[in-house]
Amino acid sequence: MSGNLPRASAYAQAGVDIVAGERAVDLIKPAVRATWGGLAAAGGSNGPRVLGDLGAFSGLVALGNSLKDPVLVSSTDGVGTKLKVAIALDRHDTIGRDLVAHCVDDILTSGATPLFFLDYVAMGKLVPERLASIVEGIAAECQANGCALVGGETAEMPDVYTADDYDIAGFIVGIVERDRIVDGSRIKAGDLVWGLESTGLHTNGYTLARKVLADFPLQDGYPGLTGTVGEALLATHRSYLPAMRPLLAEGVVRGMAHITGGGFEGNIPRMLPAGVSVELQWGAWHVPPIFDLIERHGGIDFAEMTRVFNLGLGWVFVTSEADAETVRRLTPDALPVGRITEATGDGPRVHLLGAP
Amino acid sequence: MSGNLPRASAYAQAGVDIVAGERAVDLIKPAVRATWGGLAAAGGSNGPRVLGDLGAFSGLVALGNSLKDPVLVSSTDGVGTKLKVAIALDRHDTIGRDLVAHCVDDILTSGATPLFFLDYVAMGKLVPERLASIVEGIAAECQANGCALVGGETAEMPDVYTADDYDIAGFIVGIVERDRIVDGSRIKAGDLVWGLESTGLHTNGYTLARKVLADFPLQDGYPGLTGTVGEALLATHRSYLPAMRPLLAEGVVRGMAHITGGGFEGNIPRMLPAGVSVELQWGAWHVPPIFDLIERHGGIDFAEMTRVFNLGLGWVFVTSEADAETVRRLTPDALPVGRITEATGDGPRVHLLGAP
Repeated sequence: MSGNLPRASAYAQAGVDIVAGERAVDLIKPAVRATWGGLAAAGGSNGPRVLGDLGAFSGLVALGNSLKDPVLVSSTDGVGTKLKVAIALDRHDTIGRDLVAHCVDDILTSGATPLFFLDYVAMGKLVPERLASIVEGIAAECQANGCALVGGETAEMPDVYTADDYDIAGFIVGIVERDRIVDGSRIKAGDLVWGLESTGLHTNGYTLARKVLADFPLQDGYPGLTGTVGEALLATHRSYLPAMRPLLAEGVVRGMAHITGGGFEGNIPRMLPAGVSVELQWGAWHVPPIFDLIERHGGIDFAEMTRVFNLGLGWVFVTSEADAETVRRLTPDALPVGRITEATGDGPRVHLLGAP
Repeated sequence: MSGNLPRASAYAQAGVDIVAGERAVDLIKPAVRATWGGLAAAGGSNGPRVLGDLGAFSGLVALGNSLKDPVLVSSTDGVGTKLKVAIALDRHDTIGRDLVAHCVDDILTSGATPLFFLDYVAMGKLVPERLASIVEGIAAECQANGCALVGGETAEMPDVYTADDYDIAGFIVGIVERDRIVDGSRIKAGDLVWGLESTGLHTNGYTLARKVLADFPLQDGYPGLTGTVGEALLATHRSYLPAMRPLLAEGVVRGMAHITGGGFEGNIPRMLPAGVSVELQWGAWHVPPIFDLIERHGGIDFAEMTRVFNLGLGWVFVTSEADAETVRRLTPDALPVGRITEATGDGPRVHLLGAP
C-alpha cells in the first residue's frame, strides 16, 4: 500500500498517529500480497501480472499480450451509509467485501473481468486492528474475484470524521476484448430477461432503511430471518462474476444491469437500446424478509420500494430465447424473471407485472 | 459519471436529495466530456481513447496498440484536511486540481503518462453548485494533463458528514512502456539530484499546519506572501508532468520521488536502490514563506518540519552527471539540489547539508 502517513511527533499531537499507521500496514501486508497471484490465472503466461512491491508510489500491472484489442473498464464506488451499520455492530470485516463486490459487478455489466483494485480509507482515528479488518475484507473479496489489490491510501482526518467514523471508497479496473463488450445493442423484443438474486440491500438504500429502522433494535429477529436484523442489514454484497463468467465465455449475454440505487427503473434502462422495454414478473424471485420489514415498519409505499431497493433482484441479464437452455445448463440459479417488449410511447421502460 | 443516487421522495426526507444529484450531473457534463479528447494526442490514431458515454455503470477506455509491452500504473489519494481550508474559505474550485495533480505525480514517479481518472465525492448535503465546482476543478486538471475523466461517484451521506463537510478521493491509471519504467535501479553514487519547486504544502501536513495556525486569521498576510495566508494554504498542487515529460522522452531520468507526507526522509529513499544515499544542499531551492510561518508560529522543530512538509521541494529526480546539460536545456527550472553518495551503515539515507 502506498500511504501518505506522515511521521512526526507534533503530528501525533495534532491527532495523526504514524506508529498506528505503520502497524496497520504490517497487519495487512500478507492479505494484500495474497491477491497478486490471481491475475496470472486470467490470461495464462502472457496475461496480466503485478510488478513491483508494496510501498511504492503506485501500483504496476503489466498487461501482457493475451488480448487482441483490450479495453479497460473502470468504476469507483463507496458503500454509502451501510458503514453506519458496520460501526453500530462494531463488525468491520465485511464492509470491504461489499465495496469490492459492488465494483466488480459494475464493470461486469460491460463483460469485463477484474484486473486490479485500489482502496481509499479515511478515518477519524486510525485504529490498526479496525483498518486491518476492513482491508482484509477488501483483500479477501479481491482474491475471490481474481483481482489484485495493488494500492491504497489511508488518511487519518481527525477533523473530518469523529473517532469511530470512517469512509471507504474503491476503484476497480477490469479488461475486456473489444469485440466481447456487452452493451445491450443486440437486445430485441422477445428476448428473455433473467435474474440473479441479491443477498439483501447490497450497498443501496441504507440512509432510508436506517431512518425507518432507527427505533428497531438491531439485535432483534424478524419473521423469516435466520439471524438478527443487524446481520440481515450487513449481509455481504454478492459478486455476480462467478455466475456470469461461463455465460460470457459462451457469448450468449446481450445485456446486463446491476440493480443499485434507483432500483429497477433507475438501472435496467441503462442496458436497453432505444425502442424496447422490460416486463418483469413480480413473484418470479424471492424477496428477502428485510425488505418486508422496511416496507411495513417504515410505512413505505411499494412503488417507492421498487425505486430505492433491489428487492431481492440484484442482477438482471438478457439472452435470446434460443439460448435459454444454455443459461439453464451453465447458470442453474438464473431465474426467468421477464421479457423484452416493444416500447410504447414515452412511458416507463420497466413494467412490473403482478405487483401488489 | 456513473452515480448511485437514488430517486425517491421518502429518501429526500431521509436527507438524500436526488433532484440535487441530477442537477449536479447536468452541471458537470460539459467539463467531463472536455477531458476525453486529450487521450488521442498521447498515442496518435492507434493510441488510447474513451468509448461509451456518461451514465454507464463504468468507464471504457480502448488501449489501442501504440505500446509494445504496456504496463498500467495506478494510484489513489485524497487531499487530507486541506479540504478544511477550502471549506473555511468557501472556495471549492481548486481542491479537485490538487487531487488530480497529486495522483498524476504519484504515477509519474514510475515514468507513466496519465490515461484516465475517476473521482469519489462524499458530502453531508449535496449542493449542486459546490459539487460542480469540485468536479470542474478535477476536470480542468485532468484536461491539463491529457487525462480522461471517465467516471465518478457522488455519495450524499448526511449521517457521516455534516452539511458543509465533504471528502474527496481520486484514482488514476496511467501507462508506460515496460522498458521505459523508471524504478531507481540505475541510480549510482556520483549521480546528480535535481529538484523542482513546490507551490506550497501541496496536500500534506494540513492537520499539523491547521492546528498551529488555528489562532492565525486566514485573511491576514505574512512577510513574503503576495496574498493572504488562506490563499497560500490553498495554493494548488503542482503537476510535474510538463517539466518531466521531455526528460522522460530522452530516457535520461534514473529515479524520481514525489515529496508527500513524510517529507524528504519519508519519500526520497523510495526511489533509491540499496547502497546509496542522498545529500541535499539546503538553500539550493526557495522555501515558500508559508513554511516559515508554520515553523515560527507553531514553534515546530526544524527537523520535524523536514519530516512533515516538502519545504518548497516537491519533486526530486536523478540523472547521471553526463546528462546535466540535457536537463538544463530541456527543463530549465530544474535546480541542482544534491548528489547521490555511497551509503554509510544503517543511518538515515537523506542528509540535509547546511541546514539551520
